Amino acid sequence: MPETTTRVRLALAQVNTTVGDVDGNAELVVEWAARARAEGAQIVLFPELAISGYPAEDLWLKRHFLDAAAKALAEAARRIDGICALIGFPEADAAVHNSLAVVEGGEVRAIYRKILLPNYGVFDERRYFEPGRSAGLIQAGGALAGLTLCEDIWFPGPPASVEALAGAALVLNASASPYHRGKGAFRENMLAERAAETGAAFALCNLVGGQDELVFDGHSLVVSPAGEVLARGAQFEEDLVLCELELPLARLPAAEPEDAGLDLLPSGPAAPVLARIELPPRGGSPPPPPRDPLSGDAEVYAALVLGVRDYVRKNSFERVIVAVSGGIDSALVALLAADALGPGSLTCVVMPSPHSSAETQADARAIASNLGAELVEIAIEPAMGAYGAMLDAAGTADGAAGAGLAAENIQARIRGNLVMGISNRTGWLVLTTGNKSELSVGYATLYGDMAGGFAVLKDVPKTLVYRLVRYRNEVAGKALVPTSVLERAPSAELRPGQRDEDSLPPYELLDRILEDYVELDRGREEMVSSGLPGPVVDDVIALVDRAEYKRRQAPPGIKITPKAFGRDRRLPITNRFRG
Amino acid sequence: MPETTTRVRLALAQVNTTVGDVDGNAELVVEWAARARAEGAQIVLFPELAISGYPAEDLWLKRHFLDAAAKALAEAARRIDGICALIGFPEADAAVHNSLAVVEGGEVRAIYRKILLPNYGVFDERRYFEPGRSAGLIQAGGALAGLTLCEDIWFPGPPASVEALAGAALVLNASASPYHRGKGAFRENMLAERAAETGAAFALCNLVGGQDELVFDGHSLVVSPAGEVLARGAQFEEDLVLCELELPLARLPAAEPEDAGLDLLPSGPAAPVLARIELPPRGGSPPPPPRDPLSGDAEVYAALVLGVRDYVRKNSFERVIVAVSGGIDSALVALLAADALGPGSLTCVVMPSPHSSAETQADARAIASNLGAELVEIAIEPAMGAYGAMLDAAGTADGAAGAGLAAENIQARIRGNLVMGISNRTGWLVLTTGNKSELSVGYATLYGDMAGGFAVLKDVPKTLVYRLVRYRNEVAGKALVPTSVLERAPSAELRPGQRDEDSLPPYELLDRILEDYVELDRGREEMVSSGLPGPVVDDVIALVDRAEYKRRQAPPGIKITPKAFGRDRRLPITNRFRG
Repeated sequence: MPETTTRVRLALAQVNTTVGDVDGNAELVVEWAARARAEGAQIVLFPELAISGYPAEDLWLKRHFLDAAAKALAEAARRIDGICALIGFPEADAAVHNSLAVVEGGEVRAIYRKILLPNYGVFDERRYFEPGRSAGLIQAGGALAGLTLCEDIWFPGPPASVEALAGAALVLNASASPYHRGKGAFRENMLAERAAETGAAFALCNLVGGQDELVFDGHSLVVSPAGEVLARGAQFEEDLVLCELELPLARLPAAEPEDAGLDLLPSGPAAPVLARIELPPRGGSPPPPPRDPLSGDAEVYAALVLGVRDYVRKNSFERVIVAVSGGIDSALVALLAADALGPGSLTCVVMPSPHSSAETQADARAIASNLGAELVEIAIEPAMGAYGAMLDAAGTADGAAGAGLAAENIQARIRGNLVMGISNRTGWLVLTTGNKSELSVGYATLYGDMAGGFAVLKDVPKTLVYRLVRYRNEVAGKALVPTSVLERAPSAELRPGQRDEDSLPPYELLDRILEDYVELDRGREEMVSSGLPGPVVDDVIALVDRAEYKRRQAPPGIKITPKAFGRDRRLPITNRFRG
Repeated sequence: MPETTTRVRLALAQVNTTVGDVDGNAELVVEWAARARAEGAQIVLFPELAISGYPAEDLWLKRHFLDAAAKALAEAARRIDGICALIGFPEADAAVHNSLAVVEGGEVRAIYRKILLPNYGVFDERRYFEPGRSAGLIQAGGALAGLTLCEDIWFPGPPASVEALAGAALVLNASASPYHRGKGAFRENMLAERAAETGAAFALCNLVGGQDELVFDGHSLVVSPAGEVLARGAQFEEDLVLCELELPLARLPAAEPEDAGLDLLPSGPAAPVLARIELPPRGGSPPPPPRDPLSGDAEVYAALVLGVRDYVRKNSFERVIVAVSGGIDSALVALLAADALGPGSLTCVVMPSPHSSAETQADARAIASNLGAELVEIAIEPAMGAYGAMLDAAGTADGAAGAGLAAENIQARIRGNLVMGISNRTGWLVLTTGNKSELSVGYATLYGDMAGGFAVLKDVPKTLVYRLVRYRNEVAGKALVPTSVLERAPSAELRPGQRDEDSLPPYELLDRILEDYVELDRGREEMVSSGLPGPVVDDVIALVDRAEYKRRQAPPGIKITPKAFGRDRRLPITNRFRG
């Protein structure tokens, strides 16, 4: 009896590309293809748009950028040997497509074009790409594999379903799927559902790395038709994920590649074979079992570390500056920076005012010392005096009401000026320390504590800030952040005896309301009927809406929830709707 | 012989809606429908999405917002009497559509859904709306009129072509088409082309008003099939545009409304009659001839005035603050603010340093005085001294190189703190004064001169700043801005003898390169081969790319060119592509 199955050794190369660096990304692809070959793999799958990086945004509108990407892909193809490589790239034809190149024998043998282009949340793919119109298979080593890109498999149906019907026992998916809390587990469930619906195995290679406000978590996967996880890549780091699959040989002689071209729409599903690939011999030792995934706070912490590291590294900063106040937010930012870059790349700046308590100053110094970071101290009182005199002398038509808030903001702005002064002198990056709860309700000073290049906690609610610090102390087995910081009532320390809860609801309540209003787009009535207190809900809605102009001037920060501020949530500043 | 034509009196109500204010917008629609009826009009056409305002952005994702809009539309329909009104609104069905309601007899008689949804430039309509699938006509007073929304008619072909083929002698278009320099003339040409292609008259009602970074210019139009402009609305102000058209009566009994529903895709073009409307009697005196359009610098100036006025008014600010330096940029912002709000709503703040020359200070005072605005003076030297001592005392691992730039930035930041201090004390809005050329190359200080709520000149290149000041002086018939301001070499005055051209190419050359690189997405090779000097092009590209992080924290400003910073040009900060 002839063989009815073939064993295929597959590698998922979850690499950390850099947006815009087409030559560097192509080089990475060539290197990892060689590594995959050295591990005995026959097919290596790279992430979506690996050549351009993701998201390259309006670079994808520049014809000369697309030309450079095409050239880099062709050069990479020429250099890849002894393995079939699937490489995401932006394809400039009559229109521009989000495409997957099938590379073998030194050339691009076939191209699949993404059909479902996400245009919601952080995604703008309809701005850049025309959708593909046809599913596509490759016949590789006698077995059929379907090709897809990211969103293509997030819903039941085509193209994966028609590829499976056409005989694909394996669906390959190149992704650039950004992280939010729990997204990896969600992706595993989604992939198991697709496998069950189609009876095919699914292999998803996801991008890893930070890009401005997004972190891609890697966590590449292979699942069996039964939904069992056969391979799982590392989270938040590069990884070459190996897997062997026993695949049925195609039963019928598949149509020639020349027959390809039936449109998925409007004439109905079709899945042409785009290329026939002879695979090299399989090699290597049995792949390791799937890694255990991170979960909960450990997962979020790792996402933030990678987000900081890649923003700093990819933008070529040598060192970061954190204004450490002795409060919980700046403590967490310092922890993350030290973990991301090493304490030798962190300068902590302590800037006490007459309203700073001795306890918080001691805590601030202890944090820098516990981490082994550089500590700089600058008392801000001299500048406070200068501003007070200057503003008092400047009579305006208003009288001078509200001097309290102005005086509080001036303190924050003096601190902002000082860290930016150090940054201008040194070229180091200022990490800001505000959390999502504060930024939501505008409890932050523009050009003050909001001044800096990267807002690490922009999407981290205050209640989660506490959990992450506790988590990190636990991992350390000691109080890197003194317990007094965890226990003290939150205060901006901009006037004597000030407490956050003088101005804001308790953070537990505030964060519940914010999750409803910001992340879930719930309206006032829905929130109140679910049991949240009406007057507090009204206050919070008004504060969130009014702070939109501040957020528009905030630095970018790392998305870790289902809806972050920034590209993910686009609201007008001028907006009379309430509720 | 029976009549073969009917005379229809049409009103285009180019109103200034406010985003989110669904009840206020509905009220405006009711008022203007009554005004149109009082002027004897039989049909009144309102702008696209008049009920929600445009662009309402992620408000359109909130189900409770869509419900409120639907309720406001139904209430408006109930109150509109004696006229057929076409009203743009967001329609929440199974999906959300950008729709046009045909209101008559107190109810919504039919709905047309926009087919072509722009998703480029400043537009994100695929994020919010599902496209309509069918063209649509109304039979009004015996004549057939086609319905369209904005983008639907920006290209030849359906839906207007199929509506004309189905017998429409008039195509109605409700628009929210944002302004850039020359856009009105472009729109007139486009409309004449559509008329010539289809043999129909076209009536376009465009939104008017400012909304964050966009200005809608009104400039509603009616053109004959021969492309002649029959009516033209005011630019940059509300207007009720009247026009009478002699339209052929529909030759065949049109299909019943119940027959409607043929899909435009995939079964080919179809244009069902969505409703039959009995028109009220025509009234009123003959409409006036078309207004003359503004052009050139007058048009841009008017756009900026409206942009400032509406940002201030719609966000309920009482007064604005402008830091007037004696330079050309702040002079123009003061002029615009005085024209937009009246000089009684403008406070000019002069903040000299030891590097400020007596001449520029005198010019700054003269500008405030010529405009009749309040003048406040605050010398910044005391704070400069305080910062110098504080930063010198703070030793960091860097040594202290680059203190020059840090010292320059500190001066700008002290000024930023002072105007923000006044703003915090008074609630007044700070208008920033940086121009597009500076913002392009990062020749501005974050949290310094960039500090404020609205960046009036964000999209105005430096060379145009000069032209606009000259234009305004000419209109005044006197030097509102002293000629010394126009003649002095540009300087930030942050160190002795500083000139912009020490750091930057001459503005004439810089602005040519910026137009190529920023507005036209041209690459380095294309620019150099067109004759621009290679080394300067390289420098400018590097500066523009490097300043992306600053622009991301800039306040919103008014789009007046084909490509503005902000939603219009979305580039990553982390980006290794050059060229």
